[in-house]
Amino acid sequence: MNIGFIGLGAMGSPMAENLLKAGHTVTAYNRTRARADALAAIGAQVAAAPADACHGDVVITMLADDAALEAVALGPGGILASVLSGSIHIGMSTISVALSERLAEAHHRAGSVYIAAPVFGRPEAAAAAKLFVVAAGPSAAIARCRPVFDAIGQKTYDVGERASAANVIKLCGNFMLAAMVEGLGEAIALVRKHGLDPAQFLDLITSSVFTAPAYKIYGSIIVREAYQPAGFKVPLALKDLRLMLAAGEAASVPLPLASLVRDHAIAAIARGYAEWDWSAVAKIAAENAGL
Amino acid sequence: MNIGFIGLGAMGSPMAENLLKAGHTVTAYNRTRARADALAAIGAQVAAAPADACHGDVVITMLADDAALEAVALGPGGILASVLSGSIHIGMSTISVALSERLAEAHHRAGSVYIAAPVFGRPEAAAAAKLFVVAAGPSAAIARCRPVFDAIGQKTYDVGERASAANVIKLCGNFMLAAMVEGLGEAIALVRKHGLDPAQFLDLITSSVFTAPAYKIYGSIIVREAYQPAGFKVPLALKDLRLMLAAGEAASVPLPLASLVRDHAIAAIARGYAEWDWSAVAKIAAENAGL
Amino acid sequence: MNIGFIGLGAMGSPMAENLLKAGHTVTAYNRTRARADALAAIGAQVAAAPADACHGDVVITMLADDAALEAVALGPGGILASVLSGSIHIGMSTISVALSERLAEAHHRAGSVYIAAPVFGRPEAAAAAKLFVVAAGPSAAIARCRPVFDAIGQKTYDVGERASAANVIKLCGNFMLAAMVEGLGEAIALVRKHGLDPAQFLDLITSSVFTAPAYKIYGSIIVREAYQPAGFKVPLALKDLRLMLAAGEAASVPLPLASLVRDHAIAAIARGYAEWDWSAVAKIAAENAGL
Amino acid sequence: MNIGFIGLGAMGSPMAENLLKAGHTVTAYNRTRARADALAAIGAQVAAAPADACHGDVVITMLADDAALEAVALGPGGILASVLSGSIHIGMSTISVALSERLAEAHHRAGSVYIAAPVFGRPEAAAAAKLFVVAAGPSAAIARCRPVFDAIGQKTYDVGERASAANVIKLCGNFMLAAMVEGLGEAIALVRKHGLDPAQFLDLITSSVFTAPAYKIYGSIIVREAYQPAGFKVPLALKDLRLMLAAGEAASVPLPLASLVRDHAIAAIARGYAEWDWSAVAKIAAENAGL
Repeated sequence: MNIGFIGLGAMGSPMAENLLKAGHTVTAYNRTRARADALAAIGAQVAAAPADACHGDVVITMLADDAALEAVALGPGGILASVLSGSIHIGMSTISVALSERLAEAHHRAGSVYIAAPVFGRPEAAAAAKLFVVAAGPSAAIARCRPVFDAIGQKTYDVGERASAANVIKLCGNFMLAAMVEGLGEAIALVRKHGLDPAQFLDLITSSVFTAPAYKIYGSIIVREAYQPAGFKVPLALKDLRLMLAAGEAASVPLPLASLVRDHAIAAIARGYAEWDWSAVAKIAAENAGL
Repeated sequence: MNIGFIGLGAMGSPMAENLLKAGHTVTAYNRTRARADALAAIGAQVAAAPADACHGDVVITMLADDAALEAVALGPGGILASVLSGSIHIGMSTISVALSERLAEAHHRAGSVYIAAPVFGRPEAAAAAKLFVVAAGPSAAIARCRPVFDAIGQKTYDVGERASAANVIKLCGNFMLAAMVEGLGEAIALVRKHGLDPAQFLDLITSSVFTAPAYKIYGSIIVREAYQPAGFKVPLALKDLRLMLAAGEAASVPLPLASLVRDHAIAAIARGYAEWDWSAVAKIAAENAGL
Repeated sequence: MNIGFIGLGAMGSPMAENLLKAGHTVTAYNRTRARADALAAIGAQVAAAPADACHGDVVITMLADDAALEAVALGPGGILASVLSGSIHIGMSTISVALSERLAEAHHRAGSVYIAAPVFGRPEAAAAAKLFVVAAGPSAAIARCRPVFDAIGQKTYDVGERASAANVIKLCGNFMLAAMVEGLGEAIALVRKHGLDPAQFLDLITSSVFTAPAYKIYGSIIVREAYQPAGFKVPLALKDLRLMLAAGEAASVPLPLASLVRDHAIAAIARGYAEWDWSAVAKIAAENAGL
Repeated sequence: MNIGFIGLGAMGSPMAENLLKAGHTVTAYNRTRARADALAAIGAQVAAAPADACHGDVVITMLADDAALEAVALGPGGILASVLSGSIHIGMSTISVALSERLAEAHHRAGSVYIAAPVFGRPEAAAAAKLFVVAAGPSAAIARCRPVFDAIGQKTYDVGERASAANVIKLCGNFMLAAMVEGLGEAIALVRKHGLDPAQFLDLITSSVFTAPAYKIYGSIIVREAYQPAGFKVPLALKDLRLMLAAGEAASVPLPLASLVRDHAIAAIARGYAEWDWSAVAKIAAENAGL
């Protein structure tokens, strides 16, 4: 397929690379051009502006937040103004439920199609094409995009016609990871202060009750305090929690656990860990215990 | 081995049954005798008093809380007063770090041995001999007790000489389950209020990011609101959270997530769900969202 | 003085009335005209559009939220487009720190002046001209507006040249009221469930430790569960907490107590109390205790 | 009156001194005798053991916690074993609801009388005889003790026949002070990080909305970070919050705000502020904001 790809960050770059490896044509745009040039070395076309990435079958966005996507999609010279009738915009970043709804409607009016397809997985999973893709939008369009999803992920879920459903689910998943990290952080702080070996504790619980790989990945970061280099930085997790809380407020759902982790993410930034991996919320649990 | 077994509740009964099936001699005591009689039908001896269960190689306790164990172990006619020199008391219930330390010391003075060996798993896992056993105490004694652990569990962890280490780890594991249930409860409330299918959501996250069986087991209870019959009732989870918070206070570790779930467990009791499964803390999340 | 007044809600109407009583000329605008007509009966001019209220010395806005003020101030036919050079816009509603900064800058560029002057006090205090005014902006402009503040309040604080300082302080004050109401709500729930008389409890603490009138006013609402008619409805308090949390996030200040009350405000809305006084967050404390 | 006084800490010493000044005979006991000797210099008798303070009309206890009072009251050579029939034990320290109930019952069986009379006020208020006394117990006994209460306080409340009612109210009052301090701490952290003057903020709110002296006293400590010397140390506040939470759990009342401040009190201890005034929970709010 002929694919435009906008946003070559820690996730976008390996995803675009996997699309190239799968034989797709990729026209890539990134605000700082160096990252697009790196991709050109393995076969990508470099777009000088977002509009130049909008002339294929599909344009994928993988941008940092709502503001970035709003500018690129709805701003002057943006995707809505440039995309061909009938082609598909796949929004893969974690954005708000509200923006997803606006984009679906704008594309519908413009004769193009919007699919929300956020992904679960850290940069290493993106590199290994092992992401989980949560896709929502018109089913025919999702079917057409299967080769895209297959090239970057290990499994794709189709969660229905309403694009924003995928965003709700993605936010919930990220929130549950945050709940897990908070739980790990508090438990590991307690284990340490009782003089026990946190690595042994982690081995034990991840080989018995909590066998999901996410527990091992994050638990290992926390036990080793290996918050750098960051897979996802604290402000990105704070953004996701903010979006989750906004989705909660919009539907009148109190989310006290999301509030709790949000407060710890803010504390992590306040204390100088903004560049660290977001699991540094567990560092706050440790510091609050005097560790 | 010749085993005394005190406490035949939802967990203790299937555990004792598995010991019988494995060929051990079991002398069982329960406050309400009917449960001991049921076990007699498949080969157990019935003890008329706790002391009568203390004359074998090992005496296991599986009681509801600190108060019950304290009475049976340290009270008049209790284990400490009755156990043979050199024999082993295995405390398998979830008790406080402090009581575990007192029991280890009391047995040491009495010439007997205390092993803490709390287990992870719900009654169904106990019935299937699929528990995870976390054992701590003198290593020679743990080695002697291997046949006991093998008969009831799928895996045993030896976490060192200090008995209370096993209790710290057990409390941390239960706390992490509580964190998981709170996260599931809030996420599922949001999913519902956004008009999505919670069963589909659960299938998605448990086949991608959260593959540990505990997510499926508890997620399924919450999605179906199948809080009855209870595997473990709310007050038992509240007790475990109280013990976790006490272990935190003793070591100066704030545990805000434990506090949060504790408050929801109290709300569940206040609203009439004391007889429900403890995962009914997720019912509070739902009700607070107007569901 | 010649004063425009935009926004005649539960607070704005009595404030405008007090300006009339003090001898000022008032040109009033309200989206639903009936409220302006009521004021005309006691001497106000009625403006057909916001622009018509912008031709005097001063234009005051007392609107529900950021969106309403943004539309009236910055939208087409709005204040910025209509105000005379050198005249003063006094923003008296509780708005975000960010919007206050934008307004100050926009007025500065336009040759007019922005003063932020939010007020403390409920509608009864507005009627009695007993509000507390927290004013910030160019000091000469504040001095010119003294007659306005004197007509509506019992005391005015000048907190400096930066307009948004007044908004930070107002948000902090509202947050502290929320902390007080949450504390009262939880304490009164406990008093009730221990079988004591909450009215006696309230008399005791408000005549000893907590003598500030706010404790009596809100405590009495909570003790009598007299949440209707509402002085300020729950969604308005939720908005203020949201603004407080945004001010916290902007400066990297975690505000866990604000998060807690926010969750209870959302629960109050979810459970059907959106039309009640915002102190109905205490109703959530009561319900969570099974009352 | 002939009064025994047990417990001469930061509160007890000035209280006993005021009893002497009022003309009462005081026989004082303290574990570390030096404090009793200091009182002897102004006319007190020194008791060598608690029992020696039990032969008058009244014996007052002002001890650190439940454990201390339980030992002195119910232990061998304690008050219950020594007090004369018909005489009165006034428990003035902040203790658990449960212990108050046990003491009332024990005294009733012994033919003596138990009055719970905890006080509001810091050491300076104790020195100035400006405490507020919350008394509960048999009304005739309370009437007999009026001269005692009048000598140490500015006002006495009689809250009924059930002694533990006074303890519930005292715990609620302390909790509401904790809510106030947490609110002040978070607000002041925000004010600071927005570059405003916290002293000006405090003056403003304490002369408008929050006029109760407690806001000035604690706000001033927080603004000046004058946590030493301590009026009441952090562990004492943590104890009171623990008792409040226990009273909540006993009556199935979730108290999330009490849990929140408890966590901050534990963090304060973990970070090395155990010897500071308990308002150092606000120091945690500041540190979590990177201040």
